[in-house]
Amino acid sequence: MGMLVSAFMRLGIVSSVSDEGSIGSLTLCVALLCTCIVLGHFLEGNRWVNGSIVALIIGLSTGTVILLTSKGKNSRLLEFDEKLFFICLLPPIIFNAGFKVKKKRFFRNFLTIMLFGVLGTLISFCIVSFGAKTVLDSLAIGSFELQDYLAIGAVLSATDSVGTLQVLNQDDTPLLYSLVFGEGVVNDAASVVLFKAIQRFDVSQVKSTVAWEFVANFASLFITSTLLGIVIGLLSAYIIKKLYFGRHSTDREVALMILMAYLSYVMSEMFSLSGILTVFFCGIVVSHYTWHNVTQKSKITTKHTFATFSFLAESFIFFYVGMDALDVEKWRFVTDSPAKSVGVSALLFLFVLVGRASFIFPLSLLSNFVRKSKNDKISLKQQVTILWAGLTRGAVSMALAYSQFAKSGHIQQPGNAILITSTITIVLFSTVVFGLLTKPILKTFLASSVYPDPSEPPSVDSQLLLGDERGSEANKKLRQFHRSSSLQMLFTAPTYMVHYYWRKFDDAVMRRVFGGRGFSSYDIDSIEEESVF
Amino acid sequence: MGMLVSAFMRLGIVSSVSDEGSIGSLTLCVALLCTCIVLGHFLEGNRWVNGSIVALIIGLSTGTVILLTSKGKNSRLLEFDEKLFFICLLPPIIFNAGFKVKKKRFFRNFLTIMLFGVLGTLISFCIVSFGAKTVLDSLAIGSFELQDYLAIGAVLSATDSVGTLQVLNQDDTPLLYSLVFGEGVVNDAASVVLFKAIQRFDVSQVKSTVAWEFVANFASLFITSTLLGIVIGLLSAYIIKKLYFGRHSTDREVALMILMAYLSYVMSEMFSLSGILTVFFCGIVVSHYTWHNVTQKSKITTKHTFATFSFLAESFIFFYVGMDALDVEKWRFVTDSPAKSVGVSALLFLFVLVGRASFIFPLSLLSNFVRKSKNDKISLKQQVTILWAGLTRGAVSMALAYSQFAKSGHIQQPGNAILITSTITIVLFSTVVFGLLTKPILKTFLASSVYPDPSEPPSVDSQLLLGDERGSEANKKLRQFHRSSSLQMLFTAPTYMVHYYWRKFDDAVMRRVFGGRGFSSYDIDSIEEESVF
Repeated sequence: MGMLVSAFMRLGIVSSVSDEGSIGSLTLCVALLCTCIVLGHFLEGNRWVNGSIVALIIGLSTGTVILLTSKGKNSRLLEFDEKLFFICLLPPIIFNAGFKVKKKRFFRNFLTIMLFGVLGTLISFCIVSFGAKTVLDSLAIGSFELQDYLAIGAVLSATDSVGTLQVLNQDDTPLLYSLVFGEGVVNDAASVVLFKAIQRFDVSQVKSTVAWEFVANFASLFITSTLLGIVIGLLSAYIIKKLYFGRHSTDREVALMILMAYLSYVMSEMFSLSGILTVFFCGIVVSHYTWHNVTQKSKITTKHTFATFSFLAESFIFFYVGMDALDVEKWRFVTDSPAKSVGVSALLFLFVLVGRASFIFPLSLLSNFVRKSKNDKISLKQQVTILWAGLTRGAVSMALAYSQFAKSGHIQQPGNAILITSTITIVLFSTVVFGLLTKPILKTFLASSVYPDPSEPPSVDSQLLLGDERGSEANKKLRQFHRSSSLQMLFTAPTYMVHYYWRKFDDAVMRRVFGGRGFSSYDIDSIEEESVF
Repeated sequence: MGMLVSAFMRLGIVSSVSDEGSIGSLTLCVALLCTCIVLGHFLEGNRWVNGSIVALIIGLSTGTVILLTSKGKNSRLLEFDEKLFFICLLPPIIFNAGFKVKKKRFFRNFLTIMLFGVLGTLISFCIVSFGAKTVLDSLAIGSFELQDYLAIGAVLSATDSVGTLQVLNQDDTPLLYSLVFGEGVVNDAASVVLFKAIQRFDVSQVKSTVAWEFVANFASLFITSTLLGIVIGLLSAYIIKKLYFGRHSTDREVALMILMAYLSYVMSEMFSLSGILTVFFCGIVVSHYTWHNVTQKSKITTKHTFATFSFLAESFIFFYVGMDALDVEKWRFVTDSPAKSVGVSALLFLFVLVGRASFIFPLSLLSNFVRKSKNDKISLKQQVTILWAGLTRGAVSMALAYSQFAKSGHIQQPGNAILITSTITIVLFSTVVFGLLTKPILKTFLASSVYPDPSEPPSVDSQLLLGDERGSEANKKLRQFHRSSSLQMLFTAPTYMVHYYWRKFDDAVMRRVFGGRGFSSYDIDSIEEESVF
């Protein structure tokens, strides 16, 4: 969505886009993206391949052709600017993630998701950074500062769980899906926030309190970013509900929703907060309130427009990563010592694996400790699936790596070059290998285990997860609980309490002011008289 | 729509967008666009104001505030790049125009539209260029080349009939609406093609055959651009019809339609054709074939997405024109001789008026000559309305003026400065004054005259214009005509013949291959089982 408006951002820059060469590249790029979509559609039912791999392979093929025609000088149609990624491509992906998240499931597992997404990312970051320092120092490659070690740790802590999510079924394995999805989004935000904190980190002034300051900084960034997203989301709901009453215009509504979503992102970036977190929570609020205040047509349009933008942005990123992987300049330093470079990539990936394993199992244990119902506990198989889902490194890692190690647009130092190529290697390897293996392995692995034992009656927990109808049943049960003893409930099921009081508050106050399901005249599927065209 | 992808275009440019200043400007810009939308909505029912004027006024206010806070140094949040206009903002506007054009009416009046749009633009161009040469030479302002006179002629021949179209009712005054709309689009294309031809024009090699070469060049550009648009439109229809059969995915369909529409534009530009014409005809073909091959949800989504993009692009342009009008640098040269500068603007606008009058009336006469039915002739009141509709100068004029007279991004020569400021003055004056007057004047002026005399039975012509149902009635009549004597018909109603055979061909061949209304499984309003969310 933001991409629409994002075109404005480069207003200030005199460019060479009207050169016949640039417009030719642009044309080829658009044509190849079309090819990605069509091929991706054909291969949808395929056992091995997914959309990301298709885009990656088309990118690699394009890179090869350009490399051959330019006689080894170039492999890219267009030069990637990591700012483009953060200003144009990331916002629609994250906003759409927030927009389509199953809110109940997400908030039901909120604590576990935060454990994995925030604490887990921090643990992984520490291990990878420490490992990188050990490896790079012992192999004596280039000269690095402390910041570089920390940066590569943050870069390699950003997971990409899209491949696994495509395989998991939201209805068959709700808990697993919710955890993998939630961790993925929070991890994206956490690693970017972490990366920002590192870039601001003043290495010269290391004091004893630095770790605490770091954590405090991280926490305040997290909270203010979230609040900003919620405020702008509510503002959009209020504007559309109050001001548009009685005279809804689909095009204006759609434009306003898109613009305000994007506004949340850029405003957050302007205040040096985490735009990614802001736009994610803005997406949640928009889908909970704003979306229910608009016409049926606007609902359909926005839902699919957000999804389409996200889809296009993702396809483009993988296409570009494929094309960029063949860029000669980056590999020049590597060819001097290929063995060393393969070693670095392999060892770094090993640390990624170790880093991930060392927080998934302990944190799952911790999470299971507070989960009472047997069905609600995270089984070992589920833990392994979550471990697997977060091993792939993708677009965010690439963008962060470019941002840190290719600042001038070119790779000057051999040290930086090897960190970039290692990142590319890990991204390519994990995307292709795990991408190919995920479908067949997960299908077999999960076939028997994750479905709850049908002999055991569903717990209140799982009822709460199953959408509105059953949710309201659970709600009744909760009200009975509540009548019997609210103190007892406080001990047995604190999250239900929170959920129960939130629902009460939501119905009594929030939805009255900001609209939402059941509180808008447009909620009965009232496609207007006017025909579609 | 193209804006979405257009963000890619600037990949190659290292920018300063992540500077806190730029991101701040971007944020403010997005916030002000939101304001434009909300205010525009409030003032929708207003007798005087329209959306363009709202955006213009907000732009002017923003410019004033920036001018005051920067102590007269600057008036703009962002620097306009005319390439942004042509690569990002224009394609969605023109594509949407083609997409929502009433095809029957457009093609029914094709000859008249082409007369006004192409020949009329050329006549206006000659008169304004000649007038500009006379005025500028006699006032001895700056030093101009022949190309500059020709360029200002093309710049001031690009009309902006949006304001009038907002007032005219497509159902009450179909002929008038069709002529004003059609002329507007063809004029956009014609003036841009003309402008391109002038920029390529080699002044040093003026031969006697130059006029003919110019015309031939113009014609070949026109025809090849149109064909390219048709081919890509058909290709998109074919791909979506054949490849997606049975497994429709809304997001993929929407993405593909957007990308292929944009592809038509950039490909046309790559071949140095007129992207504007290509994307317009691509829009017509997409709405006639492709749009009928997709799911109901995709139909709703694409229709509103295209409209929203177009709406946003238009709002942004007027917002920017308002903001830019206060740019001090441009006015510096003018302040030396304000009287001269006002004079130039006024005289140029006089030539615009003369140029327009001198083709509307003769060409209407010519067009009426071949129109048999009384109701079908263009009455004097209608001619005056068409004249009025095309007097406003808008975004295209601004973009062309920047492109010619502000090449380096700054106005170096006093001569160029005065042409830019004159263009701004004419655009502002005509947009605001005509914008304010159009609604009240046209409502009064047209109230009695344009509706056909109800005592007279509707002619076959007007039946043909009235949508499918009556159209098929007229079709029957035509078939009777045809049976009686196809030779007779050839003389009495050649356009019906063309229309009749086209319909036959369309039904027998085109729709079978490319899909279209009645030839797609998705045509019965079959919203899928899956709920909207």
